[in-house]
This record gives sequence, structure tokens and C-alpha cells, in this order.
Amino acid sequence: MSIDATTQLNDVDLAAVGGLVEAIQADPAKAHTTWAAHVNWKGGFASEAKIRSFEPTQSDEPAGLGGGDTAPNPVEQLLGALGNCLAVGYAANATVAGLKLDDVRIDLKGDVDLTVFLGLGEGHAGFDAIDAQVTLVSDAPREELEALHAKVLASSPVGHTLQSAVPVNISLA
Amino acid sequence: MSIDATTQLNDVDLAAVGGLVEAIQADPAKAHTTWAAHVNWKGGFASEAKIRSFEPTQSDEPAGLGGGDTAPNPVEQLLGALGNCLAVGYAANATVAGLKLDDVRIDLKGDVDLTVFLGLGEGHAGFDAIDAQVTLVSDAPREELEALHAKVLASSPVGHTLQSAVPVNISLA
Repeated sequence: MSIDATTQLNDVDLAAVGGLVEAIQADPAKAHTTWAAHVNWKGGFASEAKIRSFEPTQSDEPAGLGGGDTAPNPVEQLLGALGNCLAVGYAANATVAGLKLDDVRIDLKGDVDLTVFLGLGEGHAGFDAIDAQVTLVSDAPREELEALHAKVLASSPVGHTLQSAVPVNISLA
Repeated sequence: MSIDATTQLNDVDLAAVGGLVEAIQADPAKAHTTWAAHVNWKGGFASEAKIRSFEPTQSDEPAGLGGGDTAPNPVEQLLGALGNCLAVGYAANATVAGLKLDDVRIDLKGDVDLTVFLGLGEGHAGFDAIDAQVTLVSDAPREELEALHAKVLASSPVGHTLQSAVPVNISLA
């Protein structure tokens, strides 16, 4: 990412991103970041995730799954996280490329076979596959939007986390 | 999961879960569920995820990454989704086993190397690994809590999605 402007194209603060890039180029250890969340169970299938100083994000299951249906459930939250990550990717890479985006919409869906979650079988309890349909509204030529799309696919933290087998260590205190 | 009670242990609606289990046992195709989210970019690195009829979930990046710092970012949302999914797993499996849980807390963290996201290199842009530390407060014997823990690890939809290489198809309309 080559950044040498303080433009606010797409409302993106390129100067801040450029400062981070320069800091990492000077000291690659600065690229290592750690993120955290703290989840508290609220009874039933409801819980909330506390992240930094933000209001906790609520979670629940639909009534058909035994929940109180008060909030999106965890697999829906995961789809949302992917879409939000892609949105950042389009905004960042479009701005670096000097492309103005008028709108970005991402429609995500995925199938889960509940057999394993419900204890009716063993194996993979997660998404079989995830599909995201991206709509970019922009006056930029189609080939520039396709190049942007390729860059986003190559650099999405949540996308790569889902596409890869990431070590997940869950330990009981 | 064998369910034959209408107990409200742990505030879990076991009757609803039991009804779903029976429906799937009668017609395994009912185990196939589809979930969706719809993300809209809001300018800069801010976006929101619309899920069913719930209020949209807000997303942004910290100022150091060029965002407006108005909401958790997508990789934090992903950690929250994992923790919320595990919470459902402990509540469901404890209730089926007749264990009363007094509290469940899950502290999650994970490292992301920003090199790929920032376009300073190629490769894996996602979490290198994710750690979740689970605290179960319960009068149940330790071995029963460990058996519960093992069941949750074997059946977590978000956990398995992260631990597996899931096909993610992202297409440009």
C-alpha cells in the first residue's frame, strides 16, 4: 500500500493508515496486533460480548433453536463480521487506488447442518460454505473494480481466517 | 442430545430444542439451515450488518488503523461470535446433562499480523491463532465440567468454522 496523500476520498483517513504503514516499515514488529473479546453468559442461550469500552454486543438464538430471539445468533454474527471486514477492505484499497466508491453492499449467506451441534452426529458443526455477493456502486471502470475485488480477497483478515484452518485453543480454567 | 424434560434449568428452553431434535430425527433434511447477513458500507471504515429484523450491528476500525473508532472492528466481532457460540454450547449441553451453571465467562484473544492486510506482503491476513479461556462457575464436579467442555468443543458451529478451511465464495455482482 503506497500512501502519500492526506485525501479524504471515500471518507477514509489515509494519513492514519499511511502513518501505520510507515511505522511498520520502520519496525515490522509493529504489524503484530492482538485483539480481544470478553463474553458473559446471561442465562438460556443469551450472552453478550464486551469489546474494549463499547457497549456489549448482544447474542441469542431464535425461538426454534430454544433461544429468546432477542439478538442475532453467533453464526449470523460471524457472517456480519466477514461482511464488515470486506467493507473495510474495499474502502481502504479503493482509496489507495484513487477510486471513488458511491456504495458498497455485501449480502452474505451460509449453510449449517445442525446435526453435530445438536449431538445427533459427529463431525463438522460449522458452515459448510459461505457465499458473499458484493455490489460496488462506482463510476470506475469494471476492470478497476475487478482489480480492487482481487486485492480485497487477497488481504481480508476475517476472510482468510474463515478460509484457513486456524488453531483455536479453548481451555477450561 | 437426549431430551425428555421441559425443565428450565439454566433458563434453557429444552422443550424447544427437543422439538427440533425430534423434527430432525423424523426428517434429517430439517437439520439444514441457512443464515444470512446484509452489510452496508457507511463511508470510511464504518459499516453495519443487518441481520433479520434486528437493529444493525455497527462496525468500525480504531483510529490507529484509520477508522472512526465508533464500534468493535470485524476481527473483534469474530472473537465475540466465537465466545457467544461457546456460551450457547455450555448452556445447552449442561442443561441436557442436568448440570446447573451459575456463570460462564469466556475471555478470547487472537493475534493478527497486519502485513498482508496493509498490502506490505502476501499470505495469510487472518488470525494466526485464537485462544479462549473458559471459566465455568458451578457446583458440579470437575470431571463433569470437563466432560461438558469436551462436548462443547466437539459441537461448536463457530469454533468448527474457524478451525476448518471453509470454502468462502466472494463474488462481484
